[in-house]
Amino acid sequence: MNPNRYFSSDPAQRQVAAALYETVRSLPLVCPHGHVDPRLFSNPDYSFGTPVDLLIIPDHYIFRMLHSQGIPMEQIGVPRLDGDAVESDHRKIWQLFADNFYLFRGTPTGIWLKDELSSVFGVQERITGQSAQRIYDQIADKLAQPEFKPRRLFERFNIEVLATTDAATDTLAHHQAIKASDWSARIVPTFRPDAVVNIDTENWAQNIKALSDVSKIDVHDYKSFIAALEQRRAFFKSMGASATDHAAVTAFTGELSDAQADVIFQKALKGEFNSEDVALFTGHMLMQMARMSVEDGLTMQLHVGSLRNHNEVLFNAYGRDKGADIPLHTEFTKALKPLLNRYGSDPKLTLIVFTLDETTYSRELAPLAGHYPAMKLGAPWWFFDSLYGMERFLDSVVETAGIYNTAGFNDDTRAFPSIPARHDVWRRAAANWLAGLVVRHILDEDEAHEMSVDLAYRLAKQAYKLPQADPQHG
Amino acid sequence: MNPNRYFSSDPAQRQVAAALYETVRSLPLVCPHGHVDPRLFSNPDYSFGTPVDLLIIPDHYIFRMLHSQGIPMEQIGVPRLDGDAVESDHRKIWQLFADNFYLFRGTPTGIWLKDELSSVFGVQERITGQSAQRIYDQIADKLAQPEFKPRRLFERFNIEVLATTDAATDTLAHHQAIKASDWSARIVPTFRPDAVVNIDTENWAQNIKALSDVSKIDVHDYKSFIAALEQRRAFFKSMGASATDHAAVTAFTGELSDAQADVIFQKALKGEFNSEDVALFTGHMLMQMARMSVEDGLTMQLHVGSLRNHNEVLFNAYGRDKGADIPLHTEFTKALKPLLNRYGSDPKLTLIVFTLDETTYSRELAPLAGHYPAMKLGAPWWFFDSLYGMERFLDSVVETAGIYNTAGFNDDTRAFPSIPARHDVWRRAAANWLAGLVVRHILDEDEAHEMSVDLAYRLAKQAYKLPQADPQHG
Amino acid sequence: MNPNRYFSSDPAQRQVAAALYETVRSLPLVCPHGHVDPRLFSNPDYSFGTPVDLLIIPDHYIFRMLHSQGIPMEQIGVPRLDGDAVESDHRKIWQLFADNFYLFRGTPTGIWLKDELSSVFGVQERITGQSAQRIYDQIADKLAQPEFKPRRLFERFNIEVLATTDAATDTLAHHQAIKASDWSARIVPTFRPDAVVNIDTENWAQNIKALSDVSKIDVHDYKSFIAALEQRRAFFKSMGASATDHAAVTAFTGELSDAQADVIFQKALKGEFNSEDVALFTGHMLMQMARMSVEDGLTMQLHVGSLRNHNEVLFNAYGRDKGADIPLHTEFTKALKPLLNRYGSDPKLTLIVFTLDETTYSRELAPLAGHYPAMKLGAPWWFFDSLYGMERFLDSVVETAGIYNTAGFNDDTRAFPSIPARHDVWRRAAANWLAGLVVRHILDEDEAHEMSVDLAYRLAKQAYKLPQADPQHG
Repeated sequence: MNPNRYFSSDPAQRQVAAALYETVRSLPLVCPHGHVDPRLFSNPDYSFGTPVDLLIIPDHYIFRMLHSQGIPMEQIGVPRLDGDAVESDHRKIWQLFADNFYLFRGTPTGIWLKDELSSVFGVQERITGQSAQRIYDQIADKLAQPEFKPRRLFERFNIEVLATTDAATDTLAHHQAIKASDWSARIVPTFRPDAVVNIDTENWAQNIKALSDVSKIDVHDYKSFIAALEQRRAFFKSMGASATDHAAVTAFTGELSDAQADVIFQKALKGEFNSEDVALFTGHMLMQMARMSVEDGLTMQLHVGSLRNHNEVLFNAYGRDKGADIPLHTEFTKALKPLLNRYGSDPKLTLIVFTLDETTYSRELAPLAGHYPAMKLGAPWWFFDSLYGMERFLDSVVETAGIYNTAGFNDDTRAFPSIPARHDVWRRAAANWLAGLVVRHILDEDEAHEMSVDLAYRLAKQAYKLPQADPQHG
Repeated sequence: MNPNRYFSSDPAQRQVAAALYETVRSLPLVCPHGHVDPRLFSNPDYSFGTPVDLLIIPDHYIFRMLHSQGIPMEQIGVPRLDGDAVESDHRKIWQLFADNFYLFRGTPTGIWLKDELSSVFGVQERITGQSAQRIYDQIADKLAQPEFKPRRLFERFNIEVLATTDAATDTLAHHQAIKASDWSARIVPTFRPDAVVNIDTENWAQNIKALSDVSKIDVHDYKSFIAALEQRRAFFKSMGASATDHAAVTAFTGELSDAQADVIFQKALKGEFNSEDVALFTGHMLMQMARMSVEDGLTMQLHVGSLRNHNEVLFNAYGRDKGADIPLHTEFTKALKPLLNRYGSDPKLTLIVFTLDETTYSRELAPLAGHYPAMKLGAPWWFFDSLYGMERFLDSVVETAGIYNTAGFNDDTRAFPSIPARHDVWRRAAANWLAGLVVRHILDEDEAHEMSVDLAYRLAKQAYKLPQADPQHG
Repeated sequence: MNPNRYFSSDPAQRQVAAALYETVRSLPLVCPHGHVDPRLFSNPDYSFGTPVDLLIIPDHYIFRMLHSQGIPMEQIGVPRLDGDAVESDHRKIWQLFADNFYLFRGTPTGIWLKDELSSVFGVQERITGQSAQRIYDQIADKLAQPEFKPRRLFERFNIEVLATTDAATDTLAHHQAIKASDWSARIVPTFRPDAVVNIDTENWAQNIKALSDVSKIDVHDYKSFIAALEQRRAFFKSMGASATDHAAVTAFTGELSDAQADVIFQKALKGEFNSEDVALFTGHMLMQMARMSVEDGLTMQLHVGSLRNHNEVLFNAYGRDKGADIPLHTEFTKALKPLLNRYGSDPKLTLIVFTLDETTYSRELAPLAGHYPAMKLGAPWWFFDSLYGMERFLDSVVETAGIYNTAGFNDDTRAFPSIPARHDVWRRAAANWLAGLVVRHILDEDEAHEMSVDLAYRLAKQAYKLPQADPQHG
């Protein structure tokens, strides 16, 4: 791994970038938004399984690319909903992956994997069909060692805080177990109520039942629904949560009266609603979530613009999150106006907005964040969590919003061992981008050093209202 | 200020860029579109007031950024509509601004201010909380000197022509005073009839009354409305205007019959119209304005895609132009078809189109300007009047439309002392962009020199049909 | 012509780019999509006419730019539909073109022409008003030589395969003549049925009549229409076609029942249909075309998002393809869902999608191609077939889809002598782009070499299912 990787090849810019990166290289990792499973840490003896269990089967970035080239999901070992057999020989799956690793040339997945195998697992060879089994052995050997238990990696990765993402109905049992243990890492939940808020979620009625059970509030109308959500937020907050997370197809917001909201809620309970009801109710609940954030101080995150499960054949056979969520053209200016007019100037609200439509960076999001006190720009998300994606993000938003209306970086990953690689790409990309401004005499180098730390570390802590580090960590 | 600022750090490109810039560095400034108040020049003794009166309170680029970080508008001294007290200690406001000047790192506002303070006011220190009061003293001291009267700065800035923007109902008294004086600078009005053309403007009926008064035509129906507009255009033209300017939410154009137009006009007079009437009437009036431009030769400018006054709370307290105008997704191909089919091939029309949706550069605007004789591309506008904004503009439009279907640069500013800095950023950005084509062997250096002058000077004069410079100027 | 033209001026990147380019510089040209007239090759003695017949009159890239500056089409010699006189002095037309050649500075047309004149015709002078007649003489002299017959140029250009684009009703007489001749070049047709599939085509009824005639199937209902199309596809395939091509205003797809399709077809036969019928029928026929491609293996190409003949005045005087086709905002995620759900996972389908809306690269097309096995990304098209257009394409799609979900390059041109220049720009742009990844340590140089060949040659052959080269060619 070249120490100057990802920096510009221009010697002047490269030198400044390397200096800026050096100041942030070893800073603790702040991970305020992600999808790591907390059970990795609740059980001190948790095992990652085989290299394929860890790196291939759960990673939709990887299997969607193999699938795009016609490799059947069964051969990758992705479990079917109907329980029918899929490939179970993990060495065979690994071989297939390695044979096709060239597909990831020039992609962030390729970058992360190379970095992760090298930095975490000490693999120095290139992944090819020839090296496949040797590398498999190396990783498997490492995974059998006690230093490769999740808790040890968490410490080695120098993670200051890790936020998971958890359903509103979650009991947070694993978080409770972590808290109750003698291990003092800061692992906090994030309140994500989509499955009860979006009335067209599969099994919504069951989710409402679960909400009643877990909140001990009988959810039978809009009023009790709100009460139950408030109860859950308070519980999440007591468990260390500092943020909520909300996904929606569009950014539409708009307030209903309680009576109107209850009419839709009752229709939903009976399973009798149309798509307009869905949109109106979600738009109303986003307003409610902003209202609650003003009250309880939880930072509100909004992720919009993904058409989930685009491939219905795949969805029916394998379920959600199988690499077939496709972005949509997205509008924020009109859609967020009601929410921002009502709550956007309230100093108690922080609203972090993410997009999959890069055209909204300069056209809508940066102008909105450059005006409304509450609004901050979420890091480049999902498909854009890549070197060029990060450069386009910074190019497009900073001139209008500055960096101080961004929320810094988050890794947004369920692939725990890839976390250091992802932060490293961001830190290098940001250092290189700032260096570009230094060598063009737009920033002085001391300003760029401060901004490098802001982008790598401080802005995320600030936007997510994360406490100062526990002295024994970081 | 580094002499090579904003150029690429690649030595080859930088050297060519510096040479190209050198040929345009001292050319007179052509300012065919802007918002400088003509009273700066009608009164030879006009005073700019304090540094805060000049640089902070009227500049929505500055206070929107402070506001976005939660600083109340009152503390910035922005006057409230209700006349309630706001901060009046200008040293305190300046201190607040300086304490927060780091927010502008990497923004065009930061670039302009640093350049302006250095080049115009001789300030060599960086703006920080520590230097704030010293810098305030320095600026205040300069502003008290006779060389810092607007007319002297106009001469020092080497402005060849400055166009203001003026309501259709304006008597142009200040322009008349300038003309009547012994000072021979070329300051011309621009005809902007939005407040009478867009029937949903606040106080539209009053504006129509004012139009009757100023035109001496009793505006009571569509026919007299058109007559009055024609009268005003003729008057503006007699006062030196070479252009009109039109803002609309969308670019929709379409012709109504006179009878249909009159029906809407009558409804507007009674205050009884809906949003469709507004859109139809504006779309029709854009056609009429093009028709009049064909007749009187005034260049027509069209600015679309801003949702004005997005923050209603702020609007109700402080009024318009407070940094809360947010861009919208914009469509031109279908919207401009009626106008371009009717007038777009007429050699007597020049139509300059501006956008806040950068996606339209390569998708719609460059293909349209690369075909229709009448159409020219306006300079990157507002949020995109920035270094990277300019680069994206040139990258996106030139391959399809060439530079000769652009209208060069305009500074579009009400901040008079920032004018040289804004032109300098454009001249440097354009020189650097052309240098990029030279070092990649796409242009020869002599071609690039000619294009550098075209972009800095000639194209604007041509698109706005500005006369050759009066011998005593430039 | 500088040997390092179009490469970055950074010495490190330039050196790698030059090395990568060197491996692909002389590879045979694969031309799987274009608009060259097959009669150039059916008649061994075909003459290109004058330099203006060859280079100016048929090239809408050239005359639209001249027209955009107010030069009347008549003066460029473009024939009128009414047969009225246009300029016939080709030296005068050439002079006009040369006088205005500066308009093309920084455009791909300028790049292609300079390369073509130099590489094909040996012109070393710059095109100006002064050199115009000398250059005309030089080209005319060359065109009179036997080595400048189309077949000789085809060989000199080292074209491995050239696909033309042909109406469904075409008898492919010229292709038959080429096949029947003793000249063994691989020139294949492409099946383009738009004029019978899109029911709002001018003269659609006549086209249906022609379809009956050529297929010997009496097309009187939907069923016989489908049968005739299948007959034509089989015929095209027998003549060497490996692909179909489809243009539509939007990407809308959706299946009708046979009965519903027949209702619209019958309305179309009577000339009684509305715009919804047009959209539904085209959307349905795209599904049918995918179904047939699954059956016969022809690669399916889809080009959407152009509003044809935007300038009706020009259209009425000069007809189609006169440089007034303007792109539209385009949506793929929802529009292609029915087709991709039904056929997108079928290993027998290859669907290559092209766009004129660059925002869809990263937002929709790369995510779709990065998931669905059938879908591949078409090369940057039309306005974006340019140096920066290619860079934006690669920057935007590779991180999500990799290069292996692209279809490589196609030149899409009717300007036969410009083919080598167009491939050269792509090969240089791709080499330079890959070099950028090498010097940033994202790719190893050996990987980049392989990818350079993939982008220049292999991916196009694979996506278009082109046979291995006949030993005597390439």
